[in-house]
Amino acid sequence: MSMNKQQLAISVKKDEDISQWYTEVITKADLMDYSKVSGCIVYKPRSYEIWENIQKFLNDKIKKSGVKNCYFPLLIPESLLLKEEDHVEGFAPEVAWVDYGGDTKLGERLAVRPTSESIMYDSYSKWIQSYRDLPLRLNQWNSVVRWEFKHPTPFMRGREFLWQEGHTVYATQQEAIDEAHEIQGYYNDVYEELLAIPTTLGRKSIGEKFAGADFSLTVEPFNSADGKVIQGCTSHHLGQNFSKAFDITYLDKQQKKQYVWQNSWGLSTRTLGAMVFIHGDDRGIIQPPRVAVEKVVIIPLLFKGKEEVVLNKAYELQQKLESLGGVLVDSRSEYSPGFKFNDWELKGVPIRVEIGPRDIENNSCIIVRRDTNEKIEMKLDKINKDSISDILEEIHFTLYAKQKELQDSKTIEVNSYEEFKKYITQGYRCLVPWKETIESEDKIKEETGAKTSCLPFSHKDKDMNGVKCFFSKEDATCYAYFSKSH
Amino acid sequence: MSMNKQQLAISVKKDEDISQWYTEVITKADLMDYSKVSGCIVYKPRSYEIWENIQKFLNDKIKKSGVKNCYFPLLIPESLLLKEEDHVEGFAPEVAWVDYGGDTKLGERLAVRPTSESIMYDSYSKWIQSYRDLPLRLNQWNSVVRWEFKHPTPFMRGREFLWQEGHTVYATQQEAIDEAHEIQGYYNDVYEELLAIPTTLGRKSIGEKFAGADFSLTVEPFNSADGKVIQGCTSHHLGQNFSKAFDITYLDKQQKKQYVWQNSWGLSTRTLGAMVFIHGDDRGIIQPPRVAVEKVVIIPLLFKGKEEVVLNKAYELQQKLESLGGVLVDSRSEYSPGFKFNDWELKGVPIRVEIGPRDIENNSCIIVRRDTNEKIEMKLDKINKDSISDILEEIHFTLYAKQKELQDSKTIEVNSYEEFKKYITQGYRCLVPWKETIESEDKIKEETGAKTSCLPFSHKDKDMNGVKCFFSKEDATCYAYFSKSH
Repeated sequence: MSMNKQQLAISVKKDEDISQWYTEVITKADLMDYSKVSGCIVYKPRSYEIWENIQKFLNDKIKKSGVKNCYFPLLIPESLLLKEEDHVEGFAPEVAWVDYGGDTKLGERLAVRPTSESIMYDSYSKWIQSYRDLPLRLNQWNSVVRWEFKHPTPFMRGREFLWQEGHTVYATQQEAIDEAHEIQGYYNDVYEELLAIPTTLGRKSIGEKFAGADFSLTVEPFNSADGKVIQGCTSHHLGQNFSKAFDITYLDKQQKKQYVWQNSWGLSTRTLGAMVFIHGDDRGIIQPPRVAVEKVVIIPLLFKGKEEVVLNKAYELQQKLESLGGVLVDSRSEYSPGFKFNDWELKGVPIRVEIGPRDIENNSCIIVRRDTNEKIEMKLDKINKDSISDILEEIHFTLYAKQKELQDSKTIEVNSYEEFKKYITQGYRCLVPWKETIESEDKIKEETGAKTSCLPFSHKDKDMNGVKCFFSKEDATCYAYFSKSH
Repeated sequence: MSMNKQQLAISVKKDEDISQWYTEVITKADLMDYSKVSGCIVYKPRSYEIWENIQKFLNDKIKKSGVKNCYFPLLIPESLLLKEEDHVEGFAPEVAWVDYGGDTKLGERLAVRPTSESIMYDSYSKWIQSYRDLPLRLNQWNSVVRWEFKHPTPFMRGREFLWQEGHTVYATQQEAIDEAHEIQGYYNDVYEELLAIPTTLGRKSIGEKFAGADFSLTVEPFNSADGKVIQGCTSHHLGQNFSKAFDITYLDKQQKKQYVWQNSWGLSTRTLGAMVFIHGDDRGIIQPPRVAVEKVVIIPLLFKGKEEVVLNKAYELQQKLESLGGVLVDSRSEYSPGFKFNDWELKGVPIRVEIGPRDIENNSCIIVRRDTNEKIEMKLDKINKDSISDILEEIHFTLYAKQKELQDSKTIEVNSYEEFKKYITQGYRCLVPWKETIESEDKIKEETGAKTSCLPFSHKDKDMNGVKCFFSKEDATCYAYFSKSH
């Protein structure tokens, strides 16, 4: 849709009103639009293509590891969904139910998939008979519907979102546990290596884990701008909870019947929300270079009578950089260069190249980094795939380092509940010694709005001897990060 | 799931009972499984990965042409669906309706997307304002639900299927018409270049076109084995039917309001059904080499005491061929070589390599082509990416040529209704001079079970002067292919 300069401007600063800023920036950067269905959004090409890049990155890793993609039906009979108790309890209040096919009332109502455990494990119980059928490692890329009544936030929480769900089966628990960690590692790579977002790895507390899981592993980016952590994914070890409910067994080498060990793991378009929330600034979103749809935009400065020579040089540069992918020339004649600068900053293109008639005479051009706004003068004959790649990589590491620093500056270790409450109010993430119980977490949540994001691996092997819980003052069992969350 | 030799055997021959043959072959080749929801299938990894290969091929073409991918909500409010009359009439009887979110009855019921015209065009009417916003060319890869009550056939007709739906908008009709043909060309490439399936290109008759379209273009593979044509895709020129219903307008350069011109086009997992039906034989499916998940399977002949040397050579070959993708070693010790030959023939792997201790001594091995069963002795040091690629390409062209010949042998030009009825009964496809009317097509369908597949482009420019309709004996307006259809 055509825009004027007015429409490009964001009306609030990120640190003044981050919710309003987010709402404006995701629409104005043309990432999404609202639809006629409340809580369901349109993923416009810019966000969908970033998602495609994330898919490709993760797909390559899981396929290499031996996972295969497949597709299970969207609609799940109610009776299947009811098979695993904890599972039902978690999802039933949010299920969208299909009652009619055309004018015909269905014999049994069907759930629009909120997640696929039940329909997949029904098949698994048929498919798996012998130890030779294991491991079975399947994944689906699809969308799920959860009819939440909480306030939706595009990409972060909505009634439909895109994700992948991996569902794997092993003969032994150790293999399953190893895989849960392996997948958590890939998810961490998505955030750190691809999106330039620093994370914390750990396991979810018993109060925050997936209802049907023995334990849940997580990758948690922390948004220092509002002091809220983002649950970035989950990798669940399901133990034998589902294999017992769905009767998934195999005959071992001694012909003895055994229940299988299972995992499920998922990463969603929440990644896009994290990217916007964490890297975005008052000028718009920032596309991290390795996942960017548009990597370089070349803006020809079109002075009367010199249009052709400048445009030709712009297209020549574009061709030279073609193999990078995502190199554009903004040749629109109806907009001023200033408008275009704003427009592409809003859309977060990592590198802008400005080129005018004078520059061409001097064999030079100006390169502007989206992340730092730094202007670099560069000889035209020095612009090539390698030199631009180098800058893109620099941007990646700069983005990462900046966020790491911000995260660290808003993270603090505290030992008392008084300190804790003070820092939580100020938007900090608190590392605390804790006696892990559902009750204490509920209480803390109620009193402060903060809950655990994870029990970090970095502190897993700490000696807890004599260490007291910051809340109960009893013997602590672990270290945990508490903060507000998205 | 572990299988024995018995379970691998197909109980009927393709030319005896093609429906039964199809049902057996798709399950035994491990392409799909049935689910607890009638009419909805599980796409197992082998079929899903072939679909991924088709996606990649088509995606590259449409992205290069300027189409962008996106994602619109799964659930569509009833009021939106009702906006275009012809459209509603076509889909309403088959819509799966969501009435409840959890325990809450929805204010307006929501359709599980049967196709996305209505929800996309609602957004288009907001997004498009000026000629500068055109063309708009978006595509979605998703699944759609159509609650059909006809007998389902996996991949061919079911209540949920995977597809892509392109929805494009132009300022002028000519641009839109040109694109409809361009897309039809890409679809034809999917069949001919990727799946090795010969096709016929044309437009659908007025009785068979999409209800909301001015005209529909199609690519029609013909299955000579049962004399039934398969509608392989459609590329619709929607004219201004939807732009008027959804009020999609733009201001032209003279600031005059104009209705846009639109297309929609789709290709589905029906491609997989066509692949199985057309190439499959009494031994199983045949994966066309360019789209095959498994291209080469190496079977080590494991004689006692020589296992290691044979296995090592097998893995060495695998590594040599790695860059081809899809090269397997079947090292399972619990199965005989004969079992493995049958198993991989059933699953349609284009090339089998047999290698035993004697072969290694002679620096040779046996290569078996799945399509012709031809055995080729090859020196081990001659096996490399190029030599195997050459054979894979030969298989592609052989598969294509075979089907072309079969198609031609079952296609006949007739001029009288008597001849027509005789040949249709015998499983022929008939090319006829026809006066195109909805009434005559309905009558012919009723009397013979045959309808038009398309009005072929090959006969578009024929001089119709003095040519009489095979059915009505009035002046013919075109040539058409009639046959039974899937």
